[in-house]
Amino acid sequence: MKNLTLAKVYQLLEPGPVVLLTTTHKGRANVMTMSWQTMVEFEPPLIACVVSNANHSFAALRATKECVIAIPALELASKVVAIGNCSGKDVDKFKRFGLTPAPAERVTPPLVAECFANLECRVVDTHLVNKFNLFVLEVLKAWSDPAQKNPKTIHHCGHGRFVVDGELIKLKSNMP
Amino acid sequence: MKNLTLAKVYQLLEPGPVVLLTTTHKGRANVMTMSWQTMVEFEPPLIACVVSNANHSFAALRATKECVIAIPALELASKVVAIGNCSGKDVDKFKRFGLTPAPAERVTPPLVAECFANLECRVVDTHLVNKFNLFVLEVLKAWSDPAQKNPKTIHHCGHGRFVVDGELIKLKSNMP
Repeated sequence: MKNLTLAKVYQLLEPGPVVLLTTTHKGRANVMTMSWQTMVEFEPPLIACVVSNANHSFAALRATKECVIAIPALELASKVVAIGNCSGKDVDKFKRFGLTPAPAERVTPPLVAECFANLECRVVDTHLVNKFNLFVLEVLKAWSDPAQKNPKTIHHCGHGRFVVDGELIKLKSNMP
Repeated sequence: MKNLTLAKVYQLLEPGPVVLLTTTHKGRANVMTMSWQTMVEFEPPLIACVVSNANHSFAALRATKECVIAIPALELASKVVAIGNCSGKDVDKFKRFGLTPAPAERVTPPLVAECFANLECRVVDTHLVNKFNLFVLEVLKAWSDPAQKNPKTIHHCGHGRFVVDGELIKLKSNMP
């Protein structure tokens, strides 16, 4: 994993990929599948994400205020779905799905070595947690895997249907 | 435009498409391009979106608490970029870009007739507006255009690069 400049983090999340979210609580690492997140600020990168209070990860995120957002490529799609269909309450998901937890630099939850990007995050705002399960995160450190060239991400359309990244088009724009 | 059941709205936004956001302020309709939004709740559908206070639409959204989120297909990509590269302060964007404003049912801002889906929204939470420019919206009414079959959306990757929807895959899942 190679350092990724924080100014480029939005380019990973703005397209709306399905991601994994890792937490560590009471010494146990867990991972969940997430699709409800958006960028909030470019730099330092801020992210809003919704983690249902029905998810085992909710209590971990609220208590520890730390997580890693890991971005899986298409090749991990079936694992991503399986991770979303069981609970860390019952299962060691890293073990069951053969994912490799790798040490993060700024937070306790692990990176996911199989993902092409990993974002170490700290919760910076909890005003909307009780009402909407919405956390605001700051990305403290970002990593990308140079061995994964042009990874295709997946986008959840509901009920196990995913659209895969297709053609890349370039249009003249002044936007970041 | 045909009624779209509110329970299906998340399927449109969860994949992370670039969208248009319309507002009406002091009798003038405006439209901006947006990529920073996420679902917050299934039903009634709640959406969090970030509208920079540097955007002309910010004051309109804050003052009127109403907007329409319109989802453009690939064919509108060059207009979507051009809309993002000028300001409603200077330009009547509906006129300049040949977009057709259509009356909404529950809100004042117009639908965009050329978009394959339109979501009429009301601002329901402003706690994070001052700090993060983040609005929480409720979708009151949703429309889809049955004449646009299998529209492909675009996802912004930064600096005018967009990934277009590619292959659709289906995996066995218990998730909504």
